[in-house]
Amino acid sequence: MKIVVDAFGGDNAPVEIVEGAVLAVEEKKDLQVVLTGREDKIKEILNGRTERLEIVQANDVISNDDAPTLAIRQKKDSSLVKAFDLLKENDDIVGLVSAGSTGAVLTGAILKIGRIKGISRPALCPILPTIKPNKTVMICDSGANVDCKSEHLLHFAIMASAYASAMTGNENPKVALLNNGVEEHKGNELCKETYPLLKKLPINFVGNIEAREVMSGDVDVIVTDGFAGNVLLKSVEGVASGMSKMLKAEAKKNVFSMIGAVMMKKFKGLKEKMDINKYGGAPFLGCKKLVVKTHGSAKREVIKNTILQVAKLHENHLNEKIEELVLAMTEKSEA
Amino acid sequence: MKIVVDAFGGDNAPVEIVEGAVLAVEEKKDLQVVLTGREDKIKEILNGRTERLEIVQANDVISNDDAPTLAIRQKKDSSLVKAFDLLKENDDIVGLVSAGSTGAVLTGAILKIGRIKGISRPALCPILPTIKPNKTVMICDSGANVDCKSEHLLHFAIMASAYASAMTGNENPKVALLNNGVEEHKGNELCKETYPLLKKLPINFVGNIEAREVMSGDVDVIVTDGFAGNVLLKSVEGVASGMSKMLKAEAKKNVFSMIGAVMMKKFKGLKEKMDINKYGGAPFLGCKKLVVKTHGSAKREVIKNTILQVAKLHENHLNEKIEELVLAMTEKSEA
Repeated sequence: MKIVVDAFGGDNAPVEIVEGAVLAVEEKKDLQVVLTGREDKIKEILNGRTERLEIVQANDVISNDDAPTLAIRQKKDSSLVKAFDLLKENDDIVGLVSAGSTGAVLTGAILKIGRIKGISRPALCPILPTIKPNKTVMICDSGANVDCKSEHLLHFAIMASAYASAMTGNENPKVALLNNGVEEHKGNELCKETYPLLKKLPINFVGNIEAREVMSGDVDVIVTDGFAGNVLLKSVEGVASGMSKMLKAEAKKNVFSMIGAVMMKKFKGLKEKMDINKYGGAPFLGCKKLVVKTHGSAKREVIKNTILQVAKLHENHLNEKIEELVLAMTEKSEA
Repeated sequence: MKIVVDAFGGDNAPVEIVEGAVLAVEEKKDLQVVLTGREDKIKEILNGRTERLEIVQANDVISNDDAPTLAIRQKKDSSLVKAFDLLKENDDIVGLVSAGSTGAVLTGAILKIGRIKGISRPALCPILPTIKPNKTVMICDSGANVDCKSEHLLHFAIMASAYASAMTGNENPKVALLNNGVEEHKGNELCKETYPLLKKLPINFVGNIEAREVMSGDVDVIVTDGFAGNVLLKSVEGVASGMSKMLKAEAKKNVFSMIGAVMMKKFKGLKEKMDINKYGGAPFLGCKKLVVKTHGSAKREVIKNTILQVAKLHENHLNEKIEELVLAMTEKSEA
């Protein structure tokens, strides 16, 4: 199995990206990684470690300042566009990982790879931690589609349900609709229209969920439009980081230095628990091939996790499952 | 100055509500409070403390299970409807406080009190803490209007700007638009349409803000549609409470009991810091008279704070300021 990695995307590129790829092939013996970017730099970092690692030369880099569509169309020699070209042209390459500009990754996926038949809008689906040990929750969409119709939310629901199954092995993940109340009649027009349609899907739809229950661990998937999903995701990040800062300040104030030190350690543990990046990246669900965007600040461990995540999704036939579900859904609505 | 308080709304009614009213009149010597609800019960709690406290008999109670519109129309002898009737009919009563059903309070305010001229949609505007000491941020709207047009967001902006001034004394509060990116072109259709219009308002509009910066303390007011605002508010609540639970669990695991005890104390302090209720309630901005909804679980201190908040808003001429701003805005757009 081969995965292509954009070695020059992200704040810590290329060192952390390349080192992450090395860790991934070390951990998974049937995995090959293709790294795109400046060959001389990558070779320097690899320093002779070449087993199951290929390099494809790319001179340019797409940054967060580049307009996504323009960048994908014009920066043909960038590490990201090269990676997409490889993904598109090679049947044995099953997926792509990038820590680069989210906009460019989404645009590249749409323009270069295309959508699964029947899916009108691919969606970004990050993972959040919950208060239950080893239990996470997926948010779909978290920002790729800021204006949605109910049809899009239905697609998000089946895609994220299939994704949750592929990641956790749970064959019947609980899918909820993000809403401002739990009762069926609650919500904006989009939610009210979508709720009854979600009930008809061949997934385990469990009703509405309020944002305050997101971390409860009671559901596996939360479906929402990309605007509200983005607000949800970023406020979780913001509060977690804000509280960590406040806790740190409290700990520093502590006069007993030993207690202060123990507290800091605990806070660090909590911060790690709240860190959404350790779970890997956010797949762009609904593309013909697996595309996973990981955080711009990702270091080698996160890069490794993200590459292994792509391998897992491929082995668990995520895209085939999405195709089946969308077909079942279309047939049902035509019947 | 007289304020009417729904003594039978909320989880801790009537004891905590009545005790809160007692604390409020004790603290503010020119304040009178009218309590609505069962006279015998209220008298029992007051136990002779009657100075600047009146009781108006109401036999019924509106609960969270009642459909708001139906309840306001049919439960004429409820403590909330009686409170609204008193507010409407008495010029010397300047505002209303309730810890009861949010839906019923909003419906009552619209049906019984009505909107300020020019304001099409009154909005709920709660306060959140930030990481900066003594700095809060107001979220408008947080759930009263789940489907919005740009005109509504403009009204939210001027109302919340006036509210922030009245609460903090800051004559030029910074107002930001909640968005999924900071650049002007970012956002869903509503945001893109609203952004240029916000720039023209006679307020200090500072651009877009992402949800992760909500607790930064960099802005005073965040304007958003009620659906996204509700997601924001509730996710902040949810994460704060989720993290507190995780911290508690960590502290309990600690083998050094002294350290565990100190940690618990710190966590409690942080939890209090994150508790949005201590700041009083959320005003329903844009009604002809001041209506403030406080949390259902509010205890006497919060009830006292909410009553004193209404007094402050009245003394600082909140509604007059909103009227001025909406007039300035209308004249400008007609010119």
